[in-house]
Amino acid sequence: MNRKNSIVTLLTDFGTQDGYVGAMKGVLLDGFPNVTVVDISHEIEPFNVRQGAFALLNYAAYFPENTIHIVVVDPGVGTSRRGLVIRAGDYWFIGPDNGVFSFIVRSDTFQAYTLREKEFADVSSTFHGRDIFAPAATRLLLGQAPQEFAEPAADLTSFYDPYVEVSANEYLLTVIHTDHFGNIIFNFTIPDWKKIGSPSNIKIRLKSGFLYGIKNTFGDAREGQIMALWDSSGFLQISRNRGNAAEVLKMQVGDHVMFST
Amino acid sequence: MNRKNSIVTLLTDFGTQDGYVGAMKGVLLDGFPNVTVVDISHEIEPFNVRQGAFALLNYAAYFPENTIHIVVVDPGVGTSRRGLVIRAGDYWFIGPDNGVFSFIVRSDTFQAYTLREKEFADVSSTFHGRDIFAPAATRLLLGQAPQEFAEPAADLTSFYDPYVEVSANEYLLTVIHTDHFGNIIFNFTIPDWKKIGSPSNIKIRLKSGFLYGIKNTFGDAREGQIMALWDSSGFLQISRNRGNAAEVLKMQVGDHVMFST
Amino acid sequence: MNRKNSIVTLLTDFGTQDGYVGAMKGVLLDGFPNVTVVDISHEIEPFNVRQGAFALLNYAAYFPENTIHIVVVDPGVGTSRRGLVIRAGDYWFIGPDNGVFSFIVRSDTFQAYTLREKEFADVSSTFHGRDIFAPAATRLLLGQAPQEFAEPAADLTSFYDPYVEVSANEYLLTVIHTDHFGNIIFNFTIPDWKKIGSPSNIKIRLKSGFLYGIKNTFGDAREGQIMALWDSSGFLQISRNRGNAAEVLKMQVGDHVMFST
Repeated sequence: MNRKNSIVTLLTDFGTQDGYVGAMKGVLLDGFPNVTVVDISHEIEPFNVRQGAFALLNYAAYFPENTIHIVVVDPGVGTSRRGLVIRAGDYWFIGPDNGVFSFIVRSDTFQAYTLREKEFADVSSTFHGRDIFAPAATRLLLGQAPQEFAEPAADLTSFYDPYVEVSANEYLLTVIHTDHFGNIIFNFTIPDWKKIGSPSNIKIRLKSGFLYGIKNTFGDAREGQIMALWDSSGFLQISRNRGNAAEVLKMQVGDHVMFST
Repeated sequence: MNRKNSIVTLLTDFGTQDGYVGAMKGVLLDGFPNVTVVDISHEIEPFNVRQGAFALLNYAAYFPENTIHIVVVDPGVGTSRRGLVIRAGDYWFIGPDNGVFSFIVRSDTFQAYTLREKEFADVSSTFHGRDIFAPAATRLLLGQAPQEFAEPAADLTSFYDPYVEVSANEYLLTVIHTDHFGNIIFNFTIPDWKKIGSPSNIKIRLKSGFLYGIKNTFGDAREGQIMALWDSSGFLQISRNRGNAAEVLKMQVGDHVMFST
Repeated sequence: MNRKNSIVTLLTDFGTQDGYVGAMKGVLLDGFPNVTVVDISHEIEPFNVRQGAFALLNYAAYFPENTIHIVVVDPGVGTSRRGLVIRAGDYWFIGPDNGVFSFIVRSDTFQAYTLREKEFADVSSTFHGRDIFAPAATRLLLGQAPQEFAEPAADLTSFYDPYVEVSANEYLLTVIHTDHFGNIIFNFTIPDWKKIGSPSNIKIRLKSGFLYGIKNTFGDAREGQIMALWDSSGFLQISRNRGNAAEVLKMQVGDHVMFST
């Protein structure tokens, strides 16, 4: 097995101060010594499944095929929520069935499997990342098929609010993410825009007035100016050149704007 | 030497903004090119030796044997405090003698050695992580015995406050850690509980009333409820289902509760 | 190519919550499977180019030769600012031309090259870290010379305020960094001090009085005491033993002190 088939990424809401992420890394290195463990983040807000889901969308597809993406944002650990292994695109995904894979299962054909807890020894009730998800990754690295420790799953938990066509030329968009730089990202993509005819004369209604058109890049606005542009994953975003749009506009996940042509 | 014998983990209170952790990684990679450097955390609170000690307990034993765990939470750098190499269980530990290895030297037979500073070239007075601890790890990776650069040490600094038996059925417990999710962790373990007869009818006195029994998992309480359960390392913890118990109960390290049967 | 020639370090102001750093790691691992990706920090303050520049100085030279240091603190992404590849000392540096390499190009002979954007496919306007800088590192790892995808550059953006000789024995120093522990670091190095005759009877004027002499280490002051000493990279720093000097003295980057002999 070459290195391209031995990468495991970790996205969690654990923080790092408690050593919990360290325990997962230990389990992975002990189970498959040639694994390459890649930190994505351990600073997802505690229990913020939607933030984790959006982050995953931003990096998953840039990795070599067969990379195993573990995601542990898991407020329901210790309840009956399922643990999943998903094959989607060229990748494996492991984590809880709580919507954190919403973007993954939306955009690809996929097969999902529910992990059988009894396959895993010494499972604590509070730390499935260490006791189930990391060992499940080891089994995939060792060449096991998911059917050997999981069974087919359907009806995955998923959320993704599509934009709403209010009238022939008006669309209600929802904020799905605000990032570290204060960019405000909406549930409206380049393909969505093409579907409505790639209009160039668009406007977005904010409390403070209208934004006109979609810029190409930050440099098309003067410093401090608010603008709309496409983010690096193809979603519509509102940004402030060299500033924080989310703070200035006081917008957060779940807020709406009207987009019209 | 296979990969299982070339892992070095790093736990520090350095933060990452200054590049100090980066310097340690450079020294390790330069000294032993096949090393696998594993970040545990660099976000231990500055100088919080107890927090570092507890984190170490959570991950150390999950790594492959011979892993070298470097811990640099070192308020006494530049004083006469000793630098240590410890062999405990199947692992190596390197760091200052200030109690950060309290849990390690409590639970295992071990050998400890004091690093001889003069063995290390160009030692700055303020950055032993880079100038002594990382090079000491390199020497172990290269196959040197600790005796080649350190001498036997006794009387290590250690803290661990055992719980106090107040009466035949009353025990005073102390908070030893609060984690990222607000779980409150006490100096009372599953073995301690077995020693007193594995009582199922226990109660814990809080300012706001009593907690009864030890739950199996978060799912045994309703959302927002406070409960007692065993943490993933076998310590008693008080948690709030999908919430932050430490914030709600205003409890912190050093606080006490009465546990009775 | 052995491992010593396949290390890429990452210093960014991205945070990790959005998955952007993860995307860069995916591109690097996909482009050159044997790469060793090393996190330095992703917690540089957004757009704080000077903080990034100082951090880089602290770790760059500790890595094996031919390490590629990528730095993405890039408030000007999407403007006409140049993207650079620099060869300085035994290392490669890749990032924007905005001063983040000020210390690198100050202290070494170097060759700099401007990246040709058209050499890189599918360049987003907002994420050059993923679309240009990481792929440029891949090209170096694959053995390409910078001339194959970049052209010679001159007149790099640089800042470094030298200390000012106010009179024969008075020098005005400027704070260039405050670190995670509250150490206050000045634009005055051990070589600068030797140049003025290595005076031992120096004093530094603070609002609250004078500091006398340069201590050897933290242990030469009592707990809580303010002192001057040399930092681990050879800059003059003011520190507080087991405390935070920057908070206590309310000093920040750009502030001045008078140093006299």
